[in-house]
Amino acid sequence: MANFRMGPDTHVVPMTLFRNNRNKLASVLRESSGIRAKTSYVLLKGGKEVSFNDTDVNYPFRQESYFQYLFGVKEPNCYGVLHVESGKSTLFVPRLVEEYATWFGRLRSLDEFKAMYETDEVLYVDQLKMFFEKASPTVLLTLSGRNSDSELDSKPAYFPGIEKFKIDEEFLYPIIAECRVVKSAEEIEVLRYVAKISSEAHIKVMQFMRPGRREYEGESVFLHHCYAVGGCRHTSYTCICASGVNTAILHYGHAAAPNDRITKDGDMCLFDMGANYCGYAADITCSFPVNGKFTEDQKFIYNAVLAARNAVLTKARDGVCWVDMHKLANRVMLTHLKAGGMLKGDVNDMLDAGLAGIFQPYGLGHLLGLDVHDVGGYIKGQPKRPSEPWLKCLRFARLLKAGMYLAVEPGCYFVGWLMDRATAEPALSQFLNVQMFERFRDFGGICIEDNILITMDGCENFAVLPRTVEEIEKVMAG
Amino acid sequence: MANFRMGPDTHVVPMTLFRNNRNKLASVLRESSGIRAKTSYVLLKGGKEVSFNDTDVNYPFRQESYFQYLFGVKEPNCYGVLHVESGKSTLFVPRLVEEYATWFGRLRSLDEFKAMYETDEVLYVDQLKMFFEKASPTVLLTLSGRNSDSELDSKPAYFPGIEKFKIDEEFLYPIIAECRVVKSAEEIEVLRYVAKISSEAHIKVMQFMRPGRREYEGESVFLHHCYAVGGCRHTSYTCICASGVNTAILHYGHAAAPNDRITKDGDMCLFDMGANYCGYAADITCSFPVNGKFTEDQKFIYNAVLAARNAVLTKARDGVCWVDMHKLANRVMLTHLKAGGMLKGDVNDMLDAGLAGIFQPYGLGHLLGLDVHDVGGYIKGQPKRPSEPWLKCLRFARLLKAGMYLAVEPGCYFVGWLMDRATAEPALSQFLNVQMFERFRDFGGICIEDNILITMDGCENFAVLPRTVEEIEKVMAG
Repeated sequence: MANFRMGPDTHVVPMTLFRNNRNKLASVLRESSGIRAKTSYVLLKGGKEVSFNDTDVNYPFRQESYFQYLFGVKEPNCYGVLHVESGKSTLFVPRLVEEYATWFGRLRSLDEFKAMYETDEVLYVDQLKMFFEKASPTVLLTLSGRNSDSELDSKPAYFPGIEKFKIDEEFLYPIIAECRVVKSAEEIEVLRYVAKISSEAHIKVMQFMRPGRREYEGESVFLHHCYAVGGCRHTSYTCICASGVNTAILHYGHAAAPNDRITKDGDMCLFDMGANYCGYAADITCSFPVNGKFTEDQKFIYNAVLAARNAVLTKARDGVCWVDMHKLANRVMLTHLKAGGMLKGDVNDMLDAGLAGIFQPYGLGHLLGLDVHDVGGYIKGQPKRPSEPWLKCLRFARLLKAGMYLAVEPGCYFVGWLMDRATAEPALSQFLNVQMFERFRDFGGICIEDNILITMDGCENFAVLPRTVEEIEKVMAG
Repeated sequence: MANFRMGPDTHVVPMTLFRNNRNKLASVLRESSGIRAKTSYVLLKGGKEVSFNDTDVNYPFRQESYFQYLFGVKEPNCYGVLHVESGKSTLFVPRLVEEYATWFGRLRSLDEFKAMYETDEVLYVDQLKMFFEKASPTVLLTLSGRNSDSELDSKPAYFPGIEKFKIDEEFLYPIIAECRVVKSAEEIEVLRYVAKISSEAHIKVMQFMRPGRREYEGESVFLHHCYAVGGCRHTSYTCICASGVNTAILHYGHAAAPNDRITKDGDMCLFDMGANYCGYAADITCSFPVNGKFTEDQKFIYNAVLAARNAVLTKARDGVCWVDMHKLANRVMLTHLKAGGMLKGDVNDMLDAGLAGIFQPYGLGHLLGLDVHDVGGYIKGQPKRPSEPWLKCLRFARLLKAGMYLAVEPGCYFVGWLMDRATAEPALSQFLNVQMFERFRDFGGICIEDNILITMDGCENFAVLPRTVEEIEKVMAG
């Protein structure tokens, strides 16, 4: 049984995971009207190496996500074909010259690739045209569609000679994206593993950090655990390791703000970090006081977020609408802020006025899987992006479905220009106890992000972490 | 004084480094015939974010090397302009919308950028056209040329409206590349720092590795030291962490061979890893027995490589031809292999027959700086790539010059298909004691890679590492 694994103590990903993904896609395509399955083929192109500008150094290669989903292949520059009627799969690998062996290792035979990836057949990329000439397909289904998070389009596969065949670039996209939304039993085990490794690493970081340590030292501790122990060579996104006022910057940690602040006594930390294993992502955030002990203000905001998080984790299950979960989280948070004296007035009125978007200027969470912002949000046949200002930032608006996997990340942030807006606009400022609100101007932000699997009667949280104030203080003390 | 640094114990890179680079370039351009300096401007475009396929995740951003050389700017999507006559510099930064602050942090003013990077002026990218309309340049010098390592072309800067101006895309390339070849005092200190951090990390890895540990555990130890201690967030290339027979694969560690072998007692390790700090690269290789004790065979090959390395480090200095250094290393290695009984016959005849290319199928080293294979090898006005089969792999063929910085990496590898070729071709096999040669079929390879600064009367090695058999065994024991 072929599999992917990075070492003896790391997770075994059986190649049947990818075969099952192919079978699922073929089955859905066969049931879809509009496709004459008998001689139609799915054609995907794998990821290619991307050079750092004009140099001979490449960015670290990770397989393109749709290709990974169907084939689980480590090598760049491959193609994959799936015969819709039979589910028969053919992997096409580049034909390499002998010199390649000096630089990249012994050339593998087609049989070796077949044994490694358990596709039904393996051929060379230069045989694609011949393959299809022989197969005489009614239609080639290639992949073109817009990613609703990036607004970028996937590039349909191309090979010289493809013009000879009938091509449909549109049909496949929503179907394969929808296949990716509901996770299989084997995918769930990979996701559970990468969330577990990431959780362990987060705990190590919490125990490592103390005032005076730099943010990126924590990042490095995280990366080291995920890689050396978990075999996770990649993260799913650039680590966000913010402290103090930086915790209010949602995507802190980028090149111009590379987690390089020195933490100070009294700071909160907001560390948003997730490993990647075999292409599958974790996306976990912990907020904790760098000195291990929450102040009263920190407890106040933290508990507002925790209450929102607990409410969502209690309610999320198959059939529930995600927009309602967002509203629920916002309502609970605002209620908590009101109880603590920061806000005044009616919480429903606050929600109607869009006040929640001041504190949490983003959607409650997102689909998670091979991509950290996984596909399937606003695809054909699903609810469109809400038009209300405080809801349009949602990354999807669907009903939850058993097998969906989500990052849930309620947060309460104090962002300078949004605070200015809140105090300047009477429709918002009427709800503020301004003096108390202003006291939090340099507070930063707090976020709690879990990774949950939706089930028929609830959800399972794969992020295993101390979450209450008491739990966090205990873990950091020991 | 503005500077770049990652934390209190990390190296301070003064922004004068980049100002001095700009002044150097402007000065050389003024002296170059063919440019009417008074109203000519250099125009460079900085690096841009590159997305991972169609997703909203980007590859980790590092500044494009030419732009880094002149401006030392962390942010993507900038432009830089240098007035050749006066040396006056203008940095153009993107104009960002308010919402940006939520995600990436408070928007900086132009004055803040000016203070951070110490350019004479900072404007917005959308002011480029207006800027040049006012300046009425005779010519805009943009950057277009072929990188001789990648065979890729740099893309000249463009902005809407540039068509209105006279543009020269060719003139700048060889001149700015040549400027990068000879390092300034300030650059040398950055290079010294990144080599020092990388050396320390290599020693940690040697002391950490033992039979049963996976190759990537060593990689992770390296990365952790470079980042957490040295503030080096990036490496200059993907780490090559090979053990056993994998040590014969020059670019092992790529996506399809991700340093995932479990080391075994008796293995050699070949770890080729270099950190990156403020854009500047280290490129260092250590070969060591995973159990801390060389076998006789391992000593034999290791000492052949060490002898070649010592010969080069003794001879390299201003005025020496790099091709001669390659020949010297090859000669010393072959002499050593002959003395140990693996080869027979005349060493000059072996060299003429190209036997050295069987054992070391690549050039002795390369220029090193902002790029790991740094620019300036086969540029206009310098010796062309040699045509002899065993020399054409050289990455440059120049005379060494004080201030040049090089990676020197003699090696002795046993690569299956090259061994087959050597035994099959009488012109090569005549020199082999085949039985002994074959004994090394699964031996792998050994490489020693140092990073040296060429001076008027010798060279200085910035890779500070145990290099003799005895030194390595001692370091690994303690």
